[in-house]
Amino acid sequence: MIAMPPEEARLSIETVNGMDADAFAAAFGDIYEHSRWVAEAAFASVPFESLSALHAAMQDAVEAAPKTARLDLIRAHPDLAGKAALAGELTADSSAEQASAGLDRLSPEQMARFQALNAAYVERFGFPFVMAVRDADAARIIAGFEGRLENDRAGEIRRALAEIGKIAWMRLLAAVIPVPTGRLTTHVLCTATGRPADGMPVALYRLDSDGGRTLLGRFITNPDGRLDAPALAGADLEAGTYELVFEAGVYFARAGVATDAPAFLDRVPVRFSIANPERHYHVPLLVSPWAYSTYRGS
Amino acid sequence: MIAMPPEEARLSIETVNGMDADAFAAAFGDIYEHSRWVAEAAFASVPFESLSALHAAMQDAVEAAPKTARLDLIRAHPDLAGKAALAGELTADSSAEQASAGLDRLSPEQMARFQALNAAYVERFGFPFVMAVRDADAARIIAGFEGRLENDRAGEIRRALAEIGKIAWMRLLAAVIPVPTGRLTTHVLCTATGRPADGMPVALYRLDSDGGRTLLGRFITNPDGRLDAPALAGADLEAGTYELVFEAGVYFARAGVATDAPAFLDRVPVRFSIANPERHYHVPLLVSPWAYSTYRGS
Amino acid sequence: MIAMPPEEARLSIETVNGMDADAFAAAFGDIYEHSRWVAEAAFASVPFESLSALHAAMQDAVEAAPKTARLDLIRAHPDLAGKAALAGELTADSSAEQASAGLDRLSPEQMARFQALNAAYVERFGFPFVMAVRDADAARIIAGFEGRLENDRAGEIRRALAEIGKIAWMRLLAAVIPVPTGRLTTHVLCTATGRPADGMPVALYRLDSDGGRTLLGRFITNPDGRLDAPALAGADLEAGTYELVFEAGVYFARAGVATDAPAFLDRVPVRFSIANPERHYHVPLLVSPWAYSTYRGS
Amino acid sequence: MIAMPPEEARLSIETVNGMDADAFAAAFGDIYEHSRWVAEAAFASVPFESLSALHAAMQDAVEAAPKTARLDLIRAHPDLAGKAALAGELTADSSAEQASAGLDRLSPEQMARFQALNAAYVERFGFPFVMAVRDADAARIIAGFEGRLENDRAGEIRRALAEIGKIAWMRLLAAVIPVPTGRLTTHVLCTATGRPADGMPVALYRLDSDGGRTLLGRFITNPDGRLDAPALAGADLEAGTYELVFEAGVYFARAGVATDAPAFLDRVPVRFSIANPERHYHVPLLVSPWAYSTYRGS
Repeated sequence: MIAMPPEEARLSIETVNGMDADAFAAAFGDIYEHSRWVAEAAFASVPFESLSALHAAMQDAVEAAPKTARLDLIRAHPDLAGKAALAGELTADSSAEQASAGLDRLSPEQMARFQALNAAYVERFGFPFVMAVRDADAARIIAGFEGRLENDRAGEIRRALAEIGKIAWMRLLAAVIPVPTGRLTTHVLCTATGRPADGMPVALYRLDSDGGRTLLGRFITNPDGRLDAPALAGADLEAGTYELVFEAGVYFARAGVATDAPAFLDRVPVRFSIANPERHYHVPLLVSPWAYSTYRGS
Repeated sequence: MIAMPPEEARLSIETVNGMDADAFAAAFGDIYEHSRWVAEAAFASVPFESLSALHAAMQDAVEAAPKTARLDLIRAHPDLAGKAALAGELTADSSAEQASAGLDRLSPEQMARFQALNAAYVERFGFPFVMAVRDADAARIIAGFEGRLENDRAGEIRRALAEIGKIAWMRLLAAVIPVPTGRLTTHVLCTATGRPADGMPVALYRLDSDGGRTLLGRFITNPDGRLDAPALAGADLEAGTYELVFEAGVYFARAGVATDAPAFLDRVPVRFSIANPERHYHVPLLVSPWAYSTYRGS
Repeated sequence: MIAMPPEEARLSIETVNGMDADAFAAAFGDIYEHSRWVAEAAFASVPFESLSALHAAMQDAVEAAPKTARLDLIRAHPDLAGKAALAGELTADSSAEQASAGLDRLSPEQMARFQALNAAYVERFGFPFVMAVRDADAARIIAGFEGRLENDRAGEIRRALAEIGKIAWMRLLAAVIPVPTGRLTTHVLCTATGRPADGMPVALYRLDSDGGRTLLGRFITNPDGRLDAPALAGADLEAGTYELVFEAGVYFARAGVATDAPAFLDRVPVRFSIANPERHYHVPLLVSPWAYSTYRGS
Repeated sequence: MIAMPPEEARLSIETVNGMDADAFAAAFGDIYEHSRWVAEAAFASVPFESLSALHAAMQDAVEAAPKTARLDLIRAHPDLAGKAALAGELTADSSAEQASAGLDRLSPEQMARFQALNAAYVERFGFPFVMAVRDADAARIIAGFEGRLENDRAGEIRRALAEIGKIAWMRLLAAVIPVPTGRLTTHVLCTATGRPADGMPVALYRLDSDGGRTLLGRFITNPDGRLDAPALAGADLEAGTYELVFEAGVYFARAGVATDAPAFLDRVPVRFSIANPERHYHVPLLVSPWAYSTYRGS
C-alpha cells in the first residue's frame, strides 16, 4: 500500500484550479525533479477536471518540449543508491522514494552492485538510470537495470521518460485528492457450468507494504455473479495494493460441482494494485475446480 | 494444511502388502465408517503398488456391493453436528473430522441451523447427510446441504458415495505413507511477449489451516520458463494447501514489459491443494501485466 | 445449423397458451417419444411465458413421475441405427434426427459397430441408448456409447433423461417460435495493454451443417471494446451454430502492439452454438498477440 | 499462406555458408531495400547455423549502423501504393509484397486515402511509412498508418526498423531453406475435470491467402492429452497460416461431461501463423464446455 498523506494534507482539484501561476508552480514545481518548467507549461491547461487530467497536461508538456529539455529532465534525477543519496543531498521526494524501496539499507555487496550498474548505465546512455521505485525492492530495481541496459538509446530515452511519468503520478497522488469517479467491481463465472457463480463469498483486503492486511469488506455474489454494489468506490478507492479472496469452494459445494478432497482450488486470492483511483477497475474471475483466470476488465 | 501423523506413525505400503487378512481388516476396518466389509473385500487385491491403488480397490468394493449395502454404508455415518456428536458417540475419525471443521464449536444459532438441515435432508432422502468436512467450515457445509437438497435421490446417493470415497482417502492418508511418485512443477509464460518468462522469482509456501504459512523454497525460472527441478517431489510432497507466489513484477522490469505504477499485477499468488501426493501437479502461470490464468496441467 | 421450419409453420407462445387440453396434447404429445403423458401433465402449467418455461414444465413432469414411468419413457425410444430404423418404423422426428446424424447412411462396418454397441448397452442397463443426435455424427455417437457404458445404472438413467430433455428441447424449437428475449453480445479486451480493444473489426457468420457459412454482419468494436448493439437479437437469434471472427491483427496494427510477421494471431475465429434463443449469449474475447480466451459470459 | 518458391529454387544454409563475399552480397543485397551494406556487414558472421542466425546477423548490422544510415535505410523504401508503384518503379520484392496486400487493386477512394496518409506521415516524420504488408490488406495497413501517426519520432524510427526486420525475414524465407529444427505440437486439458483430454480428434489445416484450406493431418489425443508425435516437424513445417480444429464435442461425449444441445462448444478452431519454421510452436487448448483458451507455449 502506498503510504498516503491524510486527505486534509492534500489539495482538492478545486483548490488547484483556483491557483494563480505562481502558486501552481510552487505547489507542483518539484513533481518533475528539479524541473519547474513542466508545471509552468501545464498551468496553461487550468482548469483540470481530474488529477488524471493534470498529470496528462504535465506529460504533454514533457513530450512537447525540445529533445534537449527532455534529456535535461532525465539528467535532473539522482542516481539510485548513489552518491547524492549517501551524502543526503536528495530532494525530499526522492529520498522518501528510495527509502520505500529499501535503498537506504543496502548491504555493502548490494551497494557495490548498484554502483557498478549505475556506472555501466551512465557509460552506455550518458544519463542516470531513472525508475519509479516507490515500494519496489532491490531485486526489482536490479532486474530493471539489467533489462534496460539492453535497450538502444532512443528506446531507453522513451523508457526513462515513461518512468518519470510514473514518478510524477505517484507524487501527484500524495499532493492532490483524486476526483471520486473510480470504482472496483468484480464478476464470477463458473466455466465448469457456463453460469454466473451465484452465492460465492468474496472478501476484500488492503495490503500494506510491510505485509499487513486489513479487511475492507465481505460480499456475496448475486445470481448474475456480480456484487450488488462496487466493492469500493469514490473516496474509499485509494491507490494501493488489494486482494480479493474468492471462496470458490463454498460455491462449488452449493452448485454441486465435483471437486477433489481437499479441493484443488478453494479460496482463490487475486492480488492487484490500483494505480489510478479515478478509474474503473473491473477484476473478474473465471473459475472451474481446476483452472481460473482473471484480468483487468472494463 | 491437513494435520498428518508423523511418518513413523504411518504404515508403509510394503507393510500393508505383507499383512494377512485379519491384520488388514483390523488396520483398515474403519476407513469406511463402521463398514469393515469394504476392507475385507479390498484385501483380495493385495498387493497394492500405491496408496492410490489401495483406495481404488476399496472404492471398487463399494461400487460392486449390492445397492442395500451401499445404502447401509451411507447410513453408518453420523449426522454432522448431530446428536451422536453432542453425546460423544462418534468414532475417533469422525470426531476429529467434525472438530477440524469447527462443528464442535457452533453457536446455538448455527447448531439450530444444522439440526434443521439434517432433518430436512433425512426427510427428503432417508439417509444422513455425508460430506468430507476435514478442514471445511460451517459456511461450506451449509452450502453443501443447500445445494444437495435439490438433487434427486439417485443423484444424491451417487454424491454421498463420492463424499465417502473422499473421507476414506483422507483417512488412508493419515494411516499409510504414500509412494513417493508425486511432484509439483510449474511453468511461466508471458502472454504479452509470447515467450517463456525467464528469470522470474517464485516462492513456495505451505499454508496451515490456522492461517500460518511456512516458506518451503525460493526458485528462479530458467530460460524455458520452468524451474530446474520440481518445487517439491517424493516424500516432501504432502497432501495439503500450498501457495506459489510468482514475482511477475521483477520479470516485467527485466523484460522491459510496460506496466502501470504501481503495476496492476506484481506478486501473483496461486493457492491450491494437493489431494494426492502420489500424483504430478503441474501448476503453470500464463501472465501479462493485465491478466493471468492458471490451471492443473499435466 | 439446425434446419428450422419457417416461422409460419411454427406456433406462437400465445397460440400455445390459448389451446385446450386436447389441442395441447395433440400438439406436444410426441415431444417426448410415444409419451403423451408428459404433455398432459405439463398442461397444468399453462400459460407459459416462454418456450423455455414450456420445456421446463415438461421436464418437471418427467422428474415428478414415478421411477417406472421414467424408465418406460427411456424404453419408448428406438435404438440408434437399429432394427426399427432399418424397418422404417421410427416416428417422423426420430427418423429425421437419425438422418441428420448420418445414421441412415452408415457403412456395413459402422452398422455392425452400432449393433454391437446397442447390444452391449441394453445388456448392461436394460434399456436402449438414448442420445440427442441431431447434427451429431457417427464418431460422436460412438464416443457417447463408449463413455456411457462405463456409468453405473443410476447415473446412466439420469444421463438418459438429460438426453431426452435435450431431444425434447430441439423438437420444441421446431414447433414453437421462441420469445424474442435473447441476444448475442461480445466484448474484446487486449491483455497486452490492459485496455478494451477499440476499433477491432468483427464479422459474424452462421454455419450450416453442410459446411456452408453465411455472413450475418460486420461490426467494429467501440472504445469500450463492445459493439454498439447486440450482434443478433430477438427473432434474428436462432438456435444454431455461429462463428465470430475477430480481426485482432487490425487492432494490433492500430494500437501499436508488436507482433511477429506474419502475426501469430490475426483473424481469431470463435465458433459456438446457441441452444436457447431466448437467452443472452455473451461471447467475449481476451486477446494478446500470443494468447486468447473466450467463454460464455453473462 | 505465404506463397513460397519451391525448395529447389531456394538456397540451403550450407550453400550460403560456402559463398564468398561477392556472391553473398549478390544473393542478399536486396533483402534490405536498396541497402546492400547490410548484407556486406552480415557476411562477417558467416557461417550461420540457421536462417534465424543469418537474419539476426543482418538485424545486428542495422542496429550497429550510425543513425544516419538507419534513417537512409528507412528512406530507401517506396511509399505504399505510392507514385513509384503507379509508375512501375518498385523492386520486384516490393512490387510482389504490395500486390499480395491488394495495393495494386485499390479503388480510387482507397488510393486517395493512401495518398493522404502517406503525405501526413512524411510530413510528420520525414521518412516514408514502412510496414510488412505481405498478405495484409488495405484495412490493416490503414490501421497501421493511423496508429503510428500518433507515435513520437524516436518511437516511430524504432517501429519502422522493426517492420524492416520483418520484411527482411519474409524475403529471406523466400530465398533460403530453413534448417528443419521446428515443430508444431499441442496439448489438450479439460478444465471441467482437471484431466488431460484423452481421445479428442484434432485436424490440422493449412490456410491459403485466397481462403482455401488443405487438410494436413488428423490426430487423436493420447491419455496425456498430447499427440503421439508433432503435428508437423522439420521440412513440413513451413511459414504460413494454419488451423487446428479440436473436436471437443466428441471428447465431452466420451468423458460424460454435460453440455447443452447443441453444445455451446463443439468443434473449436484455433487459427495461427508460423513466422519462423526453425522454432517450436506449442499451441495448447484448455477447454471446458463453456470456455477455452489457447496460447503460444514452449
